[in-house]
Amino acid sequence: MEREQFFEDYVVGEVRHTTGRTITETDIVFHAGHSGDYFPHHVDVEFCKTQPFKRPIAHGTMTFAIGIGLTATEINPRAMSYGYDRLRFPNPVFAGDTIRTAVTVKSKEVDEKRPGFGRVIEAKDVTNQHGKTVMYVEHILIVEMKGDAK
Amino acid sequence: MEREQFFEDYVVGEVRHTTGRTITETDIVFHAGHSGDYFPHHVDVEFCKTQPFKRPIAHGTMTFAIGIGLTATEINPRAMSYGYDRLRFPNPVFAGDTIRTAVTVKSKEVDEKRPGFGRVIEAKDVTNQHGKTVMYVEHILIVEMKGDAK
Amino acid sequence: MEREQFFEDYVVGEVRHTTGRTITETDIVFHAGHSGDYFPHHVDVEFCKTQPFKRPIAHGTMTFAIGIGLTATEINPRAMSYGYDRLRFPNPVFAGDTIRTAVTVKSKEVDEKRPGFGRVIEAKDVTNQHGKTVMYVEHILIVEMKGDAK
Amino acid sequence: MEREQFFEDYVVGEVRHTTGRTITETDIVFHAGHSGDYFPHHVDVEFCKTQPFKRPIAHGTMTFAIGIGLTATEINPRAMSYGYDRLRFPNPVFAGDTIRTAVTVKSKEVDEKRPGFGRVIEAKDVTNQHGKTVMYVEHILIVEMKGDAK
Amino acid sequence: MEREQFFEDYVVGEVRHTTGRTITETDIVFHAGHSGDYFPHHVDVEFCKTQPFKRPIAHGTMTFAIGIGLTATEINPRAMSYGYDRLRFPNPVFAGDTIRTAVTVKSKEVDEKRPGFGRVIEAKDVTNQHGKTVMYVEHILIVEMKGDAK
Amino acid sequence: MEREQFFEDYVVGEVRHTTGRTITETDIVFHAGHSGDYFPHHVDVEFCKTQPFKRPIAHGTMTFAIGIGLTATEINPRAMSYGYDRLRFPNPVFAGDTIRTAVTVKSKEVDEKRPGFGRVIEAKDVTNQHGKTVMYVEHILIVEMKGDAK
Repeated sequence: MEREQFFEDYVVGEVRHTTGRTITETDIVFHAGHSGDYFPHHVDVEFCKTQPFKRPIAHGTMTFAIGIGLTATEINPRAMSYGYDRLRFPNPVFAGDTIRTAVTVKSKEVDEKRPGFGRVIEAKDVTNQHGKTVMYVEHILIVEMKGDAK
Repeated sequence: MEREQFFEDYVVGEVRHTTGRTITETDIVFHAGHSGDYFPHHVDVEFCKTQPFKRPIAHGTMTFAIGIGLTATEINPRAMSYGYDRLRFPNPVFAGDTIRTAVTVKSKEVDEKRPGFGRVIEAKDVTNQHGKTVMYVEHILIVEMKGDAK
Repeated sequence: MEREQFFEDYVVGEVRHTTGRTITETDIVFHAGHSGDYFPHHVDVEFCKTQPFKRPIAHGTMTFAIGIGLTATEINPRAMSYGYDRLRFPNPVFAGDTIRTAVTVKSKEVDEKRPGFGRVIEAKDVTNQHGKTVMYVEHILIVEMKGDAK
Repeated sequence: MEREQFFEDYVVGEVRHTTGRTITETDIVFHAGHSGDYFPHHVDVEFCKTQPFKRPIAHGTMTFAIGIGLTATEINPRAMSYGYDRLRFPNPVFAGDTIRTAVTVKSKEVDEKRPGFGRVIEAKDVTNQHGKTVMYVEHILIVEMKGDAK
Repeated sequence: MEREQFFEDYVVGEVRHTTGRTITETDIVFHAGHSGDYFPHHVDVEFCKTQPFKRPIAHGTMTFAIGIGLTATEINPRAMSYGYDRLRFPNPVFAGDTIRTAVTVKSKEVDEKRPGFGRVIEAKDVTNQHGKTVMYVEHILIVEMKGDAK
Repeated sequence: MEREQFFEDYVVGEVRHTTGRTITETDIVFHAGHSGDYFPHHVDVEFCKTQPFKRPIAHGTMTFAIGIGLTATEINPRAMSYGYDRLRFPNPVFAGDTIRTAVTVKSKEVDEKRPGFGRVIEAKDVTNQHGKTVMYVEHILIVEMKGDAK
């Protein structure tokens, strides 16, 4: 599960793909209870019939939790999560949809403020079974550099 | 629960505060199962003893889900969520911490690409019982304008 | 979320309506585990085929928990819950049904035993998507009086 | 699990006792999510410190669900639940308390409106580890009569 | 719930049957999160379409947990669980299947190593609604002997 | 996650170790609800005080589900699970214990009944933070042979 990668080891353009997971009604009900977000868009089938999508949609916070969770199979002990930018949900997720995440090394740059560390941007693209992007986010990692001496 | 607000009704600088919620060991265990992220930082007490914080920390995706979930008491039928920017987790959340969210109207601007709509940025600041920020994010809303004729 | 109401502020006949929530198979399975009530009427589809309703019915204790839970959007710091009377389940709830709760101030009276407090009865009527009552209960509140001096 | 009892078989004064169950923080967190009731009395430890009990209390709806759930070990195919009266919560339940339920046949009477059936009242008394009553309710059963011919 | 049985009281060939329980999508999703086993055979509907069974199958560990759980209605204070042998899953369990467990006293023998105790083998046979065995296991019990003096 | 291994690739004596997971009160409460096994040994703190271990113990079925679940990071598309033998729980698991699983290729033999397949026994040894075995089981795999022609 552990996979050590220094800043120098990240190759821009490299992609890894996760396994898939079907989002179920159960997940949506769980997430409503877990987050406390019981907005009718997620849990009221009758209300949803009056809305454009006609049926409940997954919470964005859940697509984020599961979309990122799918990538949690490898730990890099040399990297720390700094945060996320540009989190978008261009298409809805419904119960029955199967999502998977592609992780692409989007860019990397030396971190001026942290000697010995670099900044790596991983683009995380979550797609459904039709190949449509349902979530996109850029994950910012602070990664240790191997350095000269090593 | 519904509170209709047009673009014109948003006042930059206005803040609302949610109620608080204590994050428990239960939430962390639940979130590990829900997200599939069983990294030892969250679920392995022995491993955590060897780490800087000495005990399990909440998943960032959970702080996001619950921090945003706390705000889910008001629905504005004139607003749509466009996405989130600058999601950061400056301090860790532990079991036993009580978090609450402050929602500030940070800025607003006319949306050139969408006639009749404006863009509102709500800063969401999640703090713990010591007043420290544990999560910060900027939520981008697309909000209908009242317009001249109305 | 807080809405302060003294005894004098309750108006008999006033009604408020909650948002709706669809009861799912997930909720029934959860509730069986949570309550420990695994009676076949709730969790054995084959048994249920031999019964009048032909399919699993929600636990009454769940309809109570969720029907009351739907009203938990307003806290009155001047009121205490004393108990409930006349809890009835006139129609069954099935997975897929959407319920909502109407809260009516049914009656109020001075509480002889508690000077400075009155007793308010709120009728809570839980209906499904066909408008049929699936639960009825009278909630007894002990509410502080504003009193003369205030 | 099935224990057939006709109206005539119920003996007023007869008591049965359930096994015990410790209410945990997990149950309270779970119930908040299940019911959607995130009132700070149940989930905000900091708020609770300012309240008389100093710590979170279980939801009444949960004490009801679990207190009744504990009795769900015997099914009487001759009885139907009609409803509940006088539901009271005289003492709070905290995480760590162990509750059990005593079921007493309180009274029985012929049901004038339903020939062939009688009405049995079972008092359900839920107590904690100190022997204090934390919940009381009267469960109304409609029970088939054996009748003359049988 | 307690049913005291000494070694001498076990009758080889005696069978008891549990109530049934329908395995739902909820149970499978719950079990994936609980066990951390998110293999696509259980949670990826698209992957499953390419497999012989065409749809997700329940985890064997869940069939074990629930199949054994169904028998947990009687406690024998004179018996201890020693372990299980020959755990097999001859047919898959799908969401919607209703399972029940038959417990047969398969054999018994004096335990040479533990004076005063005997060894009882209970065969646990879990079947679905078509009468097919979906799990079989032999449960080894160490049971106190009544002995001569008693 | 996929790691293809033919029968010939298994090396007797080879061991792999999983990450650890702390078993929590939450897991025990969840498992009671999930399995329906509410025996007081798991959920009644007061009862447990009268027993040898003085506090609740994890269900064996849960130690099995989680102990096996920890190994679910690698899928071998050439292997099928045939069943488990010799499942034992030599020491109890309590809330707060951290478990991990060692998987050892214990033996392998040609499967006379299935030409082209062999039988591999993986011993799964689940230990706690004190290095004590809390579960042991032998997992029987049917694994495809590479064969001469390949």
